[in-house]
Amino acid sequence: MFGARGSVGTTTIAGAAALAHGSPPAGVVTELPDFASVGLVGLDQLVFGGHDLVDTPLTKQVERLAAGGVLPPGLDGLIAADLADAERNLVVPSAGGSQYDQVRRMAEDIRAFRLRNDLDRVVAINVASTEPPYEVADVDLAGLRRALATSAVLPPSSLGALAAFEADAAYVDFTPSTSIRPAAVREWAVEKGLPYGGQDAKTGETLVKSVLAPMFAARALPVHAWSGTNLLGGGDGATLADPRAAESKNVSKERGLSEMLGDVAGQVHIDYVDPMGDWKTAWDHVLFSGFLGVRMTLQFTWQGCDSALAAPLVLDLARLSALALERGHVGAMPFLGFYFKDPIESTEHSLSRQYDELLRWAQSC
Amino acid sequence: MFGARGSVGTTTIAGAAALAHGSPPAGVVTELPDFASVGLVGLDQLVFGGHDLVDTPLTKQVERLAAGGVLPPGLDGLIAADLADAERNLVVPSAGGSQYDQVRRMAEDIRAFRLRNDLDRVVAINVASTEPPYEVADVDLAGLRRALATSAVLPPSSLGALAAFEADAAYVDFTPSTSIRPAAVREWAVEKGLPYGGQDAKTGETLVKSVLAPMFAARALPVHAWSGTNLLGGGDGATLADPRAAESKNVSKERGLSEMLGDVAGQVHIDYVDPMGDWKTAWDHVLFSGFLGVRMTLQFTWQGCDSALAAPLVLDLARLSALALERGHVGAMPFLGFYFKDPIESTEHSLSRQYDELLRWAQSC
Amino acid sequence: MFGARGSVGTTTIAGAAALAHGSPPAGVVTELPDFASVGLVGLDQLVFGGHDLVDTPLTKQVERLAAGGVLPPGLDGLIAADLADAERNLVVPSAGGSQYDQVRRMAEDIRAFRLRNDLDRVVAINVASTEPPYEVADVDLAGLRRALATSAVLPPSSLGALAAFEADAAYVDFTPSTSIRPAAVREWAVEKGLPYGGQDAKTGETLVKSVLAPMFAARALPVHAWSGTNLLGGGDGATLADPRAAESKNVSKERGLSEMLGDVAGQVHIDYVDPMGDWKTAWDHVLFSGFLGVRMTLQFTWQGCDSALAAPLVLDLARLSALALERGHVGAMPFLGFYFKDPIESTEHSLSRQYDELLRWAQSC
Amino acid sequence: MFGARGSVGTTTIAGAAALAHGSPPAGVVTELPDFASVGLVGLDQLVFGGHDLVDTPLTKQVERLAAGGVLPPGLDGLIAADLADAERNLVVPSAGGSQYDQVRRMAEDIRAFRLRNDLDRVVAINVASTEPPYEVADVDLAGLRRALATSAVLPPSSLGALAAFEADAAYVDFTPSTSIRPAAVREWAVEKGLPYGGQDAKTGETLVKSVLAPMFAARALPVHAWSGTNLLGGGDGATLADPRAAESKNVSKERGLSEMLGDVAGQVHIDYVDPMGDWKTAWDHVLFSGFLGVRMTLQFTWQGCDSALAAPLVLDLARLSALALERGHVGAMPFLGFYFKDPIESTEHSLSRQYDELLRWAQSC
Ligand SMILES: NC(=O)c1ccc[n+]([C@@H]2O[C@H](COP(=O)([O-])OP(=O)(O)OC[C@H]3O[C@@H](n4cnc5c(N)ncnc54)[C@H](O)[C@@H]3O)[C@@H](O)[C@H]2O)c1
Ligand SMILES: NC(=O)c1ccc[n+]([C@@H]2O[C@H](COP(=O)([O-])OP(=O)(O)OC[C@H]3O[C@@H](n4cnc5c(N)ncnc54)[C@H](O)[C@@H]3O)[C@@H](O)[C@H]2O)c1
Ligand SMILES: NC(=O)c1ccc[n+]([C@@H]2O[C@H](COP(=O)([O-])OP(=O)(O)OC[C@H]3O[C@@H](n4cnc5c(N)ncnc54)[C@H](O)[C@@H]3O)[C@@H](O)[C@H]2O)c1
Ligand SMILES: NC(=O)c1ccc[n+]([C@@H]2O[C@H](COP(=O)([O-])OP(=O)(O)OC[C@H]3O[C@@H](n4cnc5c(N)ncnc54)[C@H](O)[C@@H]3O)[C@@H](O)[C@H]2O)c1
Ligand code: NA
Ligand code: NA
Repeated sequence: MFGARGSVGTTTIAGAAALAHGSPPAGVVTELPDFASVGLVGLDQLVFGGHDLVDTPLTKQVERLAAGGVLPPGLDGLIAADLADAERNLVVPSAGGSQYDQVRRMAEDIRAFRLRNDLDRVVAINVASTEPPYEVADVDLAGLRRALATSAVLPPSSLGALAAFEADAAYVDFTPSTSIRPAAVREWAVEKGLPYGGQDAKTGETLVKSVLAPMFAARALPVHAWSGTNLLGGGDGATLADPRAAESKNVSKERGLSEMLGDVAGQVHIDYVDPMGDWKTAWDHVLFSGFLGVRMTLQFTWQGCDSALAAPLVLDLARLSALALERGHVGAMPFLGFYFKDPIESTEHSLSRQYDELLRWAQSC
Repeated sequence: MFGARGSVGTTTIAGAAALAHGSPPAGVVTELPDFASVGLVGLDQLVFGGHDLVDTPLTKQVERLAAGGVLPPGLDGLIAADLADAERNLVVPSAGGSQYDQVRRMAEDIRAFRLRNDLDRVVAINVASTEPPYEVADVDLAGLRRALATSAVLPPSSLGALAAFEADAAYVDFTPSTSIRPAAVREWAVEKGLPYGGQDAKTGETLVKSVLAPMFAARALPVHAWSGTNLLGGGDGATLADPRAAESKNVSKERGLSEMLGDVAGQVHIDYVDPMGDWKTAWDHVLFSGFLGVRMTLQFTWQGCDSALAAPLVLDLARLSALALERGHVGAMPFLGFYFKDPIESTEHSLSRQYDELLRWAQSC
Repeated sequence: MFGARGSVGTTTIAGAAALAHGSPPAGVVTELPDFASVGLVGLDQLVFGGHDLVDTPLTKQVERLAAGGVLPPGLDGLIAADLADAERNLVVPSAGGSQYDQVRRMAEDIRAFRLRNDLDRVVAINVASTEPPYEVADVDLAGLRRALATSAVLPPSSLGALAAFEADAAYVDFTPSTSIRPAAVREWAVEKGLPYGGQDAKTGETLVKSVLAPMFAARALPVHAWSGTNLLGGGDGATLADPRAAESKNVSKERGLSEMLGDVAGQVHIDYVDPMGDWKTAWDHVLFSGFLGVRMTLQFTWQGCDSALAAPLVLDLARLSALALERGHVGAMPFLGFYFKDPIESTEHSLSRQYDELLRWAQSC
Repeated sequence: MFGARGSVGTTTIAGAAALAHGSPPAGVVTELPDFASVGLVGLDQLVFGGHDLVDTPLTKQVERLAAGGVLPPGLDGLIAADLADAERNLVVPSAGGSQYDQVRRMAEDIRAFRLRNDLDRVVAINVASTEPPYEVADVDLAGLRRALATSAVLPPSSLGALAAFEADAAYVDFTPSTSIRPAAVREWAVEKGLPYGGQDAKTGETLVKSVLAPMFAARALPVHAWSGTNLLGGGDGATLADPRAAESKNVSKERGLSEMLGDVAGQVHIDYVDPMGDWKTAWDHVLFSGFLGVRMTLQFTWQGCDSALAAPLVLDLARLSALALERGHVGAMPFLGFYFKDPIESTEHSLSRQYDELLRWAQSC
């Protein structure tokens, strides 16, 4: 994981350990009966590692998350050994050199992680802070290789993706950052014969939208305006308080709605509300009309703990991408759209269709 | 229609007339592109008639609905001729005689309606007031025939269904009343080679539930409690203020949730709030948990105009049942489950799966 | 009224006429028993006039408001004569000349209105579109007089206030515009021996805040964050879609909260959602804590028709300001704080305290 | 406290101890600056004791409340000594004998508590489970004395009140039980020269109502319907799942609304939702109209932790009643109405007026 010491990263590591100690796998979709015979790697066989810019110990993060109600109190004692194991697999990427050098160094870290833990397959998942949009020059693969040696052509998220590919790992972007958006980055994966997927996990407001919008569509009820306000604190909230980072998020949040319903009025706000901590509240207001133009509304309020919704999906994505690696899948994984606000190489946003598509792929061959 | 002068009945008649005068068909599912080549009867070819216990003129009802904001102001002038046409097809069923006699008389009314209007096919739709549950003796078809001649073996809704079958009409129950619940009533339809469908249209709270519950299921998020409160006025509200009628409604409202999510705590209330008029507000509160048991909630408030949501579905059901008649379909129509809270001979409650099933049937042959 | 042809202006004129024809005075505070013996001018003795930049006929505006559900259907016929009377008292202010000339011309219009209608007292109320903040030079009364002759020292709202004072009228600002904010404008009123009041009527979200915030304070419950989103269409919404106009509104909206609760996190959004028409929906989310720091929340959703909430208050303000004139009150009227988001020369925002203060003043002498 | 081992009782004892260890006194009204010079007993001088039917150790209850998020994790260690002190003052009342004997035995317990702890004044507060309504014979003081010797004339809550009076303690009822409702019970207090107060603390939905209802009244906005649903788990929820106990609660909940707004449609539901634990969610829907009858709504959702809202009020009531004792106040304490849904010998329900009244009394003499 890139960003392994963040809320999502830590909750994933701590949560997988808790499952190993008997917690029920709530929120882990791949533990549903539908996936029983698919041949996924066992949750207890996953080994965690990653990069992060900071080196705050995982135990410290676990403490913070337990105080915020994200992790159950008392968990830290139970999973101390698992945290220590993961801690050994965490690296702070060293700065310096060209961007190409950085990619090579991170790829080296990933290879070392694989060897040290004697792993069959590695899946790199980006759970680092959302980056602002980044203007990437429109170059082809060769051009990208040249540019990496001399200039800051890519943001960190894309360098991470390239490092993954260099280390023969699958790559999944849990964030709306640039990462695999540039065509040349994707070509890199294809050249290496590797799968990639993303972007921006849907765990709250957008998740609910992805079932409500198809409902209006299926019932032929015209939606006039869809407005939303998201209140959140935590690390992610602090990042998104920067309007440039929020822009990345908003773009991916709004794509789905217009692809599902066409042009609809209304804005989406993301407010950083520090005292909310790791909790998020989203309020949406939908103005639609029925027969003969009668105006009606639907409002919802979602109160969720973001990291506790995200972490089980990280486990899912690791298992499913490992399966894609095993099956030799090359290029985009649009069948993972179920997990994302802005599904790569797909315009399907209806959660139920996405689920069917995921299952079809998983159960195939 | 049984209950043709009620809010749903009147809105259906007035609305179809408004469409003929150029209103856009919002809420009419069968006008979606998906159904374009299915060969449904044109909306402008539908002819309306029916039974009602009261004889309040349709124009009066239209006035009342316009004052309540259900129908657009000024519509009455535009559609006066259409209302007069429909008015001629409305009958107050005469009392007296055995239940068998009543069935025969209503069947005669339906046959007369068909002849008078030179119709190819007739679909009878029950939009009469919700009845209390009715204890029907467990008899076979022959037993039912005998009992009808001598005792009050069936409630009015079931008599209406039999009248439809006797008149070679399809039958659809828009309500949670007894109607086609007894096995012998269904056998009657089969013997006559006719289709039937129902029950209890989903137009509000239950509609939303039918997409949200599958969302929780698909994401493996355990739902602990689902509580709901429905506030409504109008004729339907007044009927449901009687706890016995409300019982029928509650049973059909709650079936879906348990079939989708298993055992879940929480109650559903239906409150008659006279000043709400024809408007309904539903508030639902869902308590679920994510990873490692963290508690989260989703609330929604639906504010809809019931009849304006129901009427376009009545048009859909008329067209689709006419198609079933044309195709010679006999017996239950589970593929209409998309429209119902308590879909007959089906346990599928997920709206998106129901839509797919409906479409598959419509586009078949 | 400045802005007499807007939604608030038109609803006030049409509403007063409707009251005269027997509508109950819902929302008119000065019709409560508490004010019965205060000696206010009768609602039926009020005569309406004003300025507006546009000359769309009142009947046209009434039609638009009736279509939007703000005014009851069928009202236009009933009150046609009253609208025609008011229409004769409406003027489009002519441009040209110095700002001093404009003030003089508008004052002349007001004097003519008084004479033509043989009125004892005139109250000018600003219900024109919200202006962006305006940087007014810090001059004294004499300086202001000089500047008016040569430069655009004041925005239109302040010119309106001066015109009122020149015509011996009381002045009340229903908006958050600049109007009576500059000290020299207030001195002008004092020099003329006239009362003034404002600003920015509280009719929705802020009204509710003005009772909820004191509740938290009285119960010693610390409020950590108060977030709000306002969705509105209509003319006011379109104006506030301009971020500069919205700035004026936000400043006055937020003053109360911090004066009631001190420093509290959270943002307030005003979204222009065209399809909402004259209806406004506000959602507020309050994060507070109880004993030992336990986090709790209160959310509310207000769905109101702004002009129908505002118009009866315009009537109140006209009557109360006429009383102030009669009593020879000079300068600010802080006892009108009950009506305003940003009460002039007062820091009291608790609605119940404001009511008590208003009543005390009204019942005095 | 009667019911000292319940959620409210335990949170009060644990919370007072936490305050002594430095927690800020959030929710304790009498710690507001307004009360600084009133001469109330210090929070750290309060000593706790009481009766409960069960003997589950306080430490066990504290553990349960910490697991449920009512008390902060880790508190138990900090306050172990305080809990042990309180534990010594808790008694299980012994059954047997006439009701008069029971009163005498409990009075003896209270006197022993006073002596053992060398206290100046004792205030008995009833925080026991809500009782169903109890039909009390209409007798005078003498009649009551006779009846107590021979029959079950009173429910336990009233016996507790009498025991308090016999032991020269003030009595406050935090619940809607019968306790001090019978006239003869009140006369008993008066004969003894003691103060009493209650009933049924307002800590959630009713608290919010007590500021919103006066808002509608002050703005002359007619309220047509007020509907509410309360979801709660915990011990109190389990008690109220019994419709007879809920009846007591509903009566006291609804009194205020009708006394504030007159006749208003709408029902209030109390649903026991076990998985909610000690948390309560209330949703209220208010239908009102503005000028010319336009319909509007206000909804709110309150999500609170009941005991954490109640406990600081128990501290307030103890201090204020001790002051009343000190001042020699005899009979009802209507100035405590600020704390109650059904304020004894008062019809004032507006929170802000109640606060003013409380303060006036506290600051007098
Ligand atoms: N439900 C969810 O939580 C959810 C849903 C969708 C997307 N996301 C995305 O997941 C990401 C993580 O969210 P979070 O709540 O854990 O945030 P966080 O702020 O708690 O953690 C982010 C971590 O990334 C690290 N980081 C920043 N830049 C890095 C880099 N270049 N290389 C390596 N590490 C880097 C930070 O040091 C930090 O530890 C965010 O981008 C967020 O938008 C989260
Ligand atoms: N969104 C919706 O409106 C919706 C959704 C689901 C189900 N329904 C059901 O549709 C039905 C109609 O609702 P409505 O709002 O029009 O109610 P309504 O009270 O306005 O109308 C019911 C009509 O049925 C008539 N009626 C009663 N008994 C009859 C009988 N035995 N034979 C013939 N007519 C009879 C009544 O006279 C009345 O005119 C109800 O059962 C309701 O539960 C409505
Ligand atoms: N509940 C409420 O409706 C409410 C509450 C608080 C404040 N307000 C304020 O009241 C004002 C009116 O609201 P509205 O909904 O009627 O808006 P509106 O847009 O419908 O009407 C504003 C009118 O003002 C006129 N106008 C603009 N500039 C003018 C000028 N310089 N001189 C004369 N007329 C001018 C416009 O032509 C228009 O007719 C706004 O400033 C609004 O913020 C309204
Ligand atoms: N916010 C609030 O928590 C709130 C607000 C208003 C009223 N109340 C009332 O306060 C009371 C306590 O609430 P709770 O949540 O602590 O309930 P709880 O069920 O947790 O505790 C009640 C306690 O009373 C004890 N008890 C029952 N009958 C008794 C008797 N006759 N004598 C002595 N003890 C007895 C029980 O054993 C239990 O320990 C309830 O009546 C509730 O309605 C609470
Ligand atoms: Na079924
Ligand atoms: Na009272």
